Amino acid sequence: MLFRQLFDQDTWTYTYLIADPQTREAALVDPVIEKVERDFQLLKELGLKLKFCIETHVHADHITGTGKLRELTNCEGIVPENAQVSCASRLIKHGDVLQVGNIKIQAIATLGHTDSHMAYLVNGDRVLTGDALFIRGCGRTDFQSGDPGTLYDFVTQNLFTLPDETLVYPGHDYRGQTVSTIGEEKQWNPRFAGRTRDQFIELMNNLNLPNPKKIMEAVPANEQCGQVAIASS
Amino acid sequence: MLFRQLFDQDTWTYTYLIADPQTREAALVDPVIEKVERDFQLLKELGLKLKFCIETHVHADHITGTGKLRELTNCEGIVPENAQVSCASRLIKHGDVLQVGNIKIQAIATLGHTDSHMAYLVNGDRVLTGDALFIRGCGRTDFQSGDPGTLYDFVTQNLFTLPDETLVYPGHDYRGQTVSTIGEEKQWNPRFAGRTRDQFIELMNNLNLPNPKKIMEAVPANEQCGQVAIASS
Repeated sequence: MLFRQLFDQDTWTYTYLIADPQTREAALVDPVIEKVERDFQLLKELGLKLKFCIETHVHADHITGTGKLRELTNCEGIVPENAQVSCASRLIKHGDVLQVGNIKIQAIATLGHTDSHMAYLVNGDRVLTGDALFIRGCGRTDFQSGDPGTLYDFVTQNLFTLPDETLVYPGHDYRGQTVSTIGEEKQWNPRFAGRTRDQFIELMNNLNLPNPKKIMEAVPANEQCGQVAIASS
Repeated sequence: MLFRQLFDQDTWTYTYLIADPQTREAALVDPVIEKVERDFQLLKELGLKLKFCIETHVHADHITGTGKLRELTNCEGIVPENAQVSCASRLIKHGDVLQVGNIKIQAIATLGHTDSHMAYLVNGDRVLTGDALFIRGCGRTDFQSGDPGTLYDFVTQNLFTLPDETLVYPGHDYRGQTVSTIGEEKQWNPRFAGRTRDQFIELMNNLNLPNPKKIMEAVPANEQCGQVAIASS
């Protein structure tokens, strides 16, 4: 498997390129609109055919690159079920498997950061956790129908039940970390380790974070697969 | 092998953690002084014993974390031969192999960015290229005894002769890329691909880059393994 982690420095966002070196089919998870040129060039250089752009959720901190990439490559745009997105090529639900060449990408429901969110288990050995689980952290739960109790339940029941050695690739990192494991996060993630559900809810309800800078433009744009931004750019 | 790429957002620097999960021995390559707390905490959480802090070269854009880490862990500080560094535990020369548990880290001379620089081949399948070779770029050659002809020779003779599938992990990236391969860089690196040695020299001599912001403090501090910064912080 060809697997590349790509970073957007402005919004601390990770995009993932997954491809089958034999069939040359590829998927991008959580592309960022400002990085479409970089990602498209990489696809060309590696001789890959983009089959899917896959979203973990409707992002509030950056605009998705899916709309632009769909225009450039004719790929499908995959969005979790229940997302307020009218333009998806396909909605995906818990347990669904996307096939990229011989690679299996399985959706895992991980609600709570938003009320529509999937993590993606890639070939059984690594999970892209979006904004549900970060390295030693987790996504906030105070807007976009976020709910801390729901996040606690999905992370502990659907992610922490994966094998300990499963690699964790998050949707963001703010400390320069790139990868962790499920075992490490169960033991060391300060949001979850040693906390009851009620303690987690209390913690999350008192973070008092400022809104993401781009929330007012990003959410409506992402509900149109980023195509609003194309029209105005 | 446990292998972690770590990022310093302020200076776009990659630090690498390499460890043997059986023996728990570990090495850090190119640690950054501002990230010592993060890296030391990660070592503790993973139950690792730091054996080596290894430098690819004397950096001009950030201060090394080696001095602080040596105080915290009693590790050895490994520096390429000919570096103007008086405090190294050991100088390393081309072909030398450092053993971290069962992992072999082999030094590869890659001069030209500075007149003392090593890349490190880890377990034969990945090479940490420091500032000699970047993803689709290379380190500058206009200060610290840099020399573009020398860089061209070492990159083409000592790095591009590795197997095409060898993973390339650079010392910096300024576009959010994390990994590449030797085959990709031979084909797509715009500094080298399709250029003669003379054309490379002409290109590098006309980049007209500003000096790194931290050069005046970083170089003298790194010649003391970062310990100047400790004294003044």
